[in-house]
Amino acid sequence: MRSRRFLGIERLTVMNNIFENVTLGKNVVIEPFCIIGQPPKGFSEGDLETVIGADSLIRSHTVIYAGNKIGSRFQTGHQVTIRENNIIGSDCAIGTYGELAFDIKIGNNVKFHSDCHIYEGTLVEDDVRFNPGVFVLNAKYPYRPGQKTRIEPVVIRRGAIIAARCTLMPGVQIGRCAFIGAGSLVTKSVPDFAVVYGRPAAIRGDIRTLKDSSGTLLYEVKE
Amino acid sequence: MRSRRFLGIERLTVMNNIFENVTLGKNVVIEPFCIIGQPPKGFSEGDLETVIGADSLIRSHTVIYAGNKIGSRFQTGHQVTIRENNIIGSDCAIGTYGELAFDIKIGNNVKFHSDCHIYEGTLVEDDVRFNPGVFVLNAKYPYRPGQKTRIEPVVIRRGAIIAARCTLMPGVQIGRCAFIGAGSLVTKSVPDFAVVYGRPAAIRGDIRTLKDSSGTLLYEVKE
Amino acid sequence: MRSRRFLGIERLTVMNNIFENVTLGKNVVIEPFCIIGQPPKGFSEGDLETVIGADSLIRSHTVIYAGNKIGSRFQTGHQVTIRENNIIGSDCAIGTYGELAFDIKIGNNVKFHSDCHIYEGTLVEDDVRFNPGVFVLNAKYPYRPGQKTRIEPVVIRRGAIIAARCTLMPGVQIGRCAFIGAGSLVTKSVPDFAVVYGRPAAIRGDIRTLKDSSGTLLYEVKE
Repeated sequence: MRSRRFLGIERLTVMNNIFENVTLGKNVVIEPFCIIGQPPKGFSEGDLETVIGADSLIRSHTVIYAGNKIGSRFQTGHQVTIRENNIIGSDCAIGTYGELAFDIKIGNNVKFHSDCHIYEGTLVEDDVRFNPGVFVLNAKYPYRPGQKTRIEPVVIRRGAIIAARCTLMPGVQIGRCAFIGAGSLVTKSVPDFAVVYGRPAAIRGDIRTLKDSSGTLLYEVKE
Repeated sequence: MRSRRFLGIERLTVMNNIFENVTLGKNVVIEPFCIIGQPPKGFSEGDLETVIGADSLIRSHTVIYAGNKIGSRFQTGHQVTIRENNIIGSDCAIGTYGELAFDIKIGNNVKFHSDCHIYEGTLVEDDVRFNPGVFVLNAKYPYRPGQKTRIEPVVIRRGAIIAARCTLMPGVQIGRCAFIGAGSLVTKSVPDFAVVYGRPAAIRGDIRTLKDSSGTLLYEVKE
Repeated sequence: MRSRRFLGIERLTVMNNIFENVTLGKNVVIEPFCIIGQPPKGFSEGDLETVIGADSLIRSHTVIYAGNKIGSRFQTGHQVTIRENNIIGSDCAIGTYGELAFDIKIGNNVKFHSDCHIYEGTLVEDDVRFNPGVFVLNAKYPYRPGQKTRIEPVVIRRGAIIAARCTLMPGVQIGRCAFIGAGSLVTKSVPDFAVVYGRPAAIRGDIRTLKDSSGTLLYEVKE
C-alpha cells in the first residue's frame, strides 16, 4: 500500500502546468495533471488572457487553452479539453471527457454531462442541460474547399434539454425549453417547447404538457 | 532522441497521486499520471476505503475515486475514470476512456472494451461483454425536478454481449446471454438468449441457434 | 494567480515518460504528461522501435505504444491513445480522444477529427478525412470463440470522407472519394464516389455531382 496527499498548494504547482497570463479567481482548485492557459496555434505564451472565476474546480487531466473567459463556480470533470476563445458564464459544468472547440459562447447555469463534444461557433443560452454523449456539429459538408469559413453553428435557446447521445446537425436552432430525446439525429430546427426524438428527430409533443405514467407534469416550464 | 525509464517504484510514487486509505493487493501496477482514492464530494481524504485486488494493472491517466471495492486481476485501459462506491468483481477490465459513475455493481469476469460509459446504479452480472462505445443510461426524463432520486437503472444478466455503440435506455433488463447488435437503441427489456438489434431494438433471433454463413453455431451458450 | 512555463526541454523530460528505443525526428515537440514507446503486453522496454517523424507535435496526455512507425509532421490532439505496431504515413493527424488500436495501416495526409476510434487491422489509404466520433469496427460477432483470429477489417480507399458519428461495420470497403453522411451505420461496402447515409447507409448520390443550394459543385474530385 502506498499513500500520499496531493492537495497542498505546493504539490499542485509541481503537478500542473499553468502558463503566464492566467487569472484565477479566489478559491479556484486545480487538480493534478492539468494544463491551463496553453497558447493556441499562432500565439505565444501570455498573448491571450485566460480567466477562470472564483470557486471553480478544475478536475484532473483537464486542458484549458488561452483566451477563455470563464465565470464563477465553473466545474470540469476529468480529462476535459477546452480550446481557445470561448466565453462561458457562471455556474457552468463540463463533465468528464467533455470537449469544447473554440469561439463558443455559453450562458449561465449550463451543464454538460460527460463526453459531450461541442464544435466551434456553437451558441448555448442560459440554463441548457446536456446529458452524456451529445455532439453539436457545424460542418454540413465537412472538408469541402473553404469549409472553415462556412461553418453553420448550432444555436440552443435557454432551458433546452438535450438527452443522451443526440447529434445536432449544423445550423439547426433548438428552441427555448425544447426537449430532444435520447439518440436523436436533429436535422431541422426545433420549435420552442417541442418534444422531439428519432432519426431524423420529429415533433412528438410539448414539454409543457409532458406527463409521467401517473399523470403528473414532468417539467416545470417557465414561459 | 530522448529516452528514459519509468517503471521503477520510485518513479511511480513521484508520478502518481495515491491518497490515504487505499489498499492495493500484491503485484498491483499503477502506471504514471493516475489518481487513486480521490475523495468524492462531501468526503475527506481517508474517509472511504479503496481496495484494488492483487495482480491488477491500472494504466496511465486513470482516476479511481475512494470507496471502490475492486477484485483481483482488474485492468483498466488508459484515461479511465471510475467514480465512488462501485463494487467490481474479479477478472474485470474497463477499456481506454471508459467511465463508471457511482453505485454500480459489476460481477466477475466482465469486460468493457474502450469508451463505454456506465451510469449510476447499473447492475452487471458475471461474464458480460461490452464492445466499444456502449452507453448505459438511467434517467428517462433527465433533469426533471427530483430526477436524482428517481433513477431507473439498467440490469444486465450474466453472459450477455452488447455490441459496439449500443445505447441501453433507463430501466431495461438485458436477459441472460442475450446479444445486442451494434448501434442498437434498446428501449424495452430483452429476453434471455434473444438476439436483438435496430433502433428501437427488436428481436431477430436466438443466440443458441445463431450460425455463421457456413452453418456453424457462433456461440457456445451454457443454459 | 499562479503562472509557470513548461516548454523548455528540461521541463519536458521531467513531465513525460519516454521509453528506450524511441526515435524522434528533428523538431518533434512532446507536450507534458505523455508516454511514448510503452512496451505492449509480452514485450520489454526497448524490444520494439518507435519512430515519430520530424516536425511532429504530440499534444498533452497522449500515449503512444512501442512499435509504431509514424511519418513526418504528425499531430495528435490531447489525450490520444495509440497502441502498438501501427504504420502511419506523413502529414497525418489524430484529434483529441482519438484511439488507434494495433496493426493499423494509415497512408499519407489522413486526418481524424476528435474522438475517432479505429480498431485493429483497419487499412486507410491516403487523403482520407474523418469527422468527429467515427468508429471503425472489425468484429462481426464480438466475443465468439476464436474471434481474435477472425477479424474482418475495414478498408477505406483514398480520398473518402467519413462524416461525424458514423459507424463502419466489420469488413466493409469504403470506395475512393466516397462520402458517408453523419450518423450513418455502414453495413455494406460503398462504391467509389458514392454519397451514402442512413442506418443502414444507402446510396443517395455521387460526390462528383454533389452541389450546394446555389448549384455549385461542393467537392473537387480528382478521378
